[in-house]
Amino acid sequence: MPSGRVYDLAVGPAPAVRSMSARSAMMADLAGLLDHRALVAPEDAPPYEQGYRYGAGCAASVVRPASIAELRAIVTYCCRNDIGFLVQGANSGLVGASTPDDSGDQLLINLTRMTGIEELDVLDRAATVLAGTRLSAVNAAAASHQLCFPIDLGADPTIGGMVATNTGGARMLRYGDVRRNLLGLEVVLADADATIVTDLAGLRKDNSGFDWKQIFVGTGGAFGIVTRARIELHHLPQRTTAALVVPRGQEAVPRIIALLETALGDGLTACEGMSRNAMRAAFDHHPSLRDPFGGRIPDYVLLVELGTSMPEAILPDLDAALAEAIGSALVGASPDIEDVLVGRPADFWAIRHSISDGIARSGQVIAFDIAVQRSKLPAFRSAALAMLASDFPQIQVCDFGHCGDGGDHFNLVWPTCDLPPEAERRPVIEALRGAIYDLVVFGFGGTYSAEHGVGPHNQEYYDRYKPEPARALSGRLQSMFDEKGLMGNVRL
Amino acid sequence: MPSGRVYDLAVGPAPAVRSMSARSAMMADLAGLLDHRALVAPEDAPPYEQGYRYGAGCAASVVRPASIAELRAIVTYCCRNDIGFLVQGANSGLVGASTPDDSGDQLLINLTRMTGIEELDVLDRAATVLAGTRLSAVNAAAASHQLCFPIDLGADPTIGGMVATNTGGARMLRYGDVRRNLLGLEVVLADADATIVTDLAGLRKDNSGFDWKQIFVGTGGAFGIVTRARIELHHLPQRTTAALVVPRGQEAVPRIIALLETALGDGLTACEGMSRNAMRAAFDHHPSLRDPFGGRIPDYVLLVELGTSMPEAILPDLDAALAEAIGSALVGASPDIEDVLVGRPADFWAIRHSISDGIARSGQVIAFDIAVQRSKLPAFRSAALAMLASDFPQIQVCDFGHCGDGGDHFNLVWPTCDLPPEAERRPVIEALRGAIYDLVVFGFGGTYSAEHGVGPHNQEYYDRYKPEPARALSGRLQSMFDEKGLMGNVRL
Repeated sequence: MPSGRVYDLAVGPAPAVRSMSARSAMMADLAGLLDHRALVAPEDAPPYEQGYRYGAGCAASVVRPASIAELRAIVTYCCRNDIGFLVQGANSGLVGASTPDDSGDQLLINLTRMTGIEELDVLDRAATVLAGTRLSAVNAAAASHQLCFPIDLGADPTIGGMVATNTGGARMLRYGDVRRNLLGLEVVLADADATIVTDLAGLRKDNSGFDWKQIFVGTGGAFGIVTRARIELHHLPQRTTAALVVPRGQEAVPRIIALLETALGDGLTACEGMSRNAMRAAFDHHPSLRDPFGGRIPDYVLLVELGTSMPEAILPDLDAALAEAIGSALVGASPDIEDVLVGRPADFWAIRHSISDGIARSGQVIAFDIAVQRSKLPAFRSAALAMLASDFPQIQVCDFGHCGDGGDHFNLVWPTCDLPPEAERRPVIEALRGAIYDLVVFGFGGTYSAEHGVGPHNQEYYDRYKPEPARALSGRLQSMFDEKGLMGNVRL
Repeated sequence: MPSGRVYDLAVGPAPAVRSMSARSAMMADLAGLLDHRALVAPEDAPPYEQGYRYGAGCAASVVRPASIAELRAIVTYCCRNDIGFLVQGANSGLVGASTPDDSGDQLLINLTRMTGIEELDVLDRAATVLAGTRLSAVNAAAASHQLCFPIDLGADPTIGGMVATNTGGARMLRYGDVRRNLLGLEVVLADADATIVTDLAGLRKDNSGFDWKQIFVGTGGAFGIVTRARIELHHLPQRTTAALVVPRGQEAVPRIIALLETALGDGLTACEGMSRNAMRAAFDHHPSLRDPFGGRIPDYVLLVELGTSMPEAILPDLDAALAEAIGSALVGASPDIEDVLVGRPADFWAIRHSISDGIARSGQVIAFDIAVQRSKLPAFRSAALAMLASDFPQIQVCDFGHCGDGGDHFNLVWPTCDLPPEAERRPVIEALRGAIYDLVVFGFGGTYSAEHGVGPHNQEYYDRYKPEPARALSGRLQSMFDEKGLMGNVRL
């Protein structure tokens, strides 16, 4: 997002501002505790201090422990000396949760040196990995056994970051989110002993007490630091096919999804929605993309994917199977499908994956990551489009996303040609955000953060929308795990 | 289990023993708070005071609220007057968690009048139900839309009880446990205001904060009382087929499962293991069962089921598909499958479902509900069989269970013909339990309770096997939610 980056400031508790001499003392202490390779020189710190989409700050220091022992030494040191700290994986999150604030007081702990696949058990379809291991590394190792960790994302995060964010992605409809694929966990707590809690036995069935690992999933690292995970692997689809389906009006979309689910079972591996403006932005800025619509882009299109590891002897013709499934929505008294385009899945996904960049090049992006019940998505889109056309006519809606799960990256673009100076833009964008979020949350029982998490970027919306007493409950847990408020940059 | 019922006594905190007059005063108070239909007369109480497998006690009183408002009035009354209470659904659990102790001091709150399906959303594949609604009622309503709540159990519990227990069952391999199918929850907390925490929006994607509902799943009601749930429904398989597969030795089982998963994808809806002794007990005591082995029962058999909602146009011949999948394990240098029997799925499931009763009629059952990583199940079984043959030769192993998930109801039978008096049996059974659990937990990293939960029956094993600091963490949460230790009968 080249223009209009939003710099989020810290919302966490502010440790007493440290003097330069206190910082030097801390760095000397850390140098005594850690291998020299764990210390990042100040001149090498900036890449760690800049978030991928939001957030840019300044850390007191950046450390990169290579082992859990080193990590625990750092946590112990921080907790005993009341030093605020923030844990970072690949720093690829989209809500600033892994980026330090600009106080210069937070110790930034990057885990990307703490890597390794400790076990890959093919018969159990599971792997035990260190938190700093990248998703791509896990998938490369799994692929040699025809397995995968099927959380399909645009980024290449660390497994620890994925657990903390509970990432979902484009194939959640089929495989679920990280929580659903987490068989075991190890965390380090923010106490003076850096207590380690472990259950990596990886049992699929274990009701022998409170499943404590759940409280560290999707809490953005606010309750503890993920150090290892046991993750479930799935059989890599051996064959895929895809189609672009043009619904006859937005209201037909949930019915089409239900029909596809019935006919394809879990062969339905993705069902992504793309609006006309989103696709047009992709085509405009990526001339190498093939436009399968010959310039006449429909209002809204579903990218439907069928994938399977069933051999041909069992499921002989995937294209025919998809055609058959789609056919059931083509016939009848009020057919829900207007048109179907078949083609290479890679071509269709290329359109989907070019949207983010395409709209970023079209102007100022105001990004949303909302979700409602999938049956309510048409009504929400219709209400939101009407509200925007009336109150914010200068804004283009370029939404796309995981409509099979009710998710929608309801991204808006303020076209470059119409952009006023930033001072004028800011209040409009703030009003716009509020209006969309109010509509999602109060009007449709939806969420302001479907998959990206809270983070400093969403703290104000958390404070506004998270109802009591769920918020009080979360706050009590955070106080329990982080008594002094030293860890992270979010207050739940 | 007609012989040798184990009467578990309370392990929870003991409220001060109440005098008869205090009990009368309490009953008068409750009569003032509740509709008279919510009050169970003392002579009608016994069915509520007797557990299905373990536990038998005596409640101070039994109340059956019909609404959440009535339930909250009771909880408020208990919390303000320091009265211990226990919540019960269908009382069909297998660890005594829903059965009062014998102190006569606990108020027993049965929720089976709090029923109703408030919403059944076909396009969203989800239903919102009150906690006292039975699984069978949900499935009856869902079936008319070709949907189901696919947690397949031998009992007919309430949805609230299922959430508290995080039930799994025979088709977990395909559909997951309750946690995996829980989209929203409402709970009442054990505080003086009977605080209600609600999120029934039912979003499939929502990372807007701590997913607090997770802490009430599988904790046996120790942290709060489930009042409503939003559950995910699945498409009802329209066609199923099944086979009995005889592995060439126990070690072949995990390889066979992996092969079936690859070839059938999520069409593989069950993979249950049955030992020779388990099947023999079923045949011996259920003469109407068809014995497909002609009397020569193999050592161990897998019941493999393929189910799908795909229409015939997509997946034409289910029997052929299953045969093809099994065929891949029949060939090769060291074929893993010795024999395959095809037949009617209902006949095969009849064998599986007659095992529990068959072994109960064979003698004293010592029931286990263990799980290990599924790749370790053969090694565990082998070690356990050797230990029992050497140290407990009088005991027969009649195990069966969900080997696709690593679960095994490793049930043992002390044959009726060899049974010594109970006083002699007890210490042997205790030693035997300890030996098996030590082997599972310490030898194979497994669990002493795969799907049944903790409950008073497993409290001593929880205390023995749950490692610190996970136990301390659980205890802190329980203290947070139940400050005075009034709720339930388990100490986590």
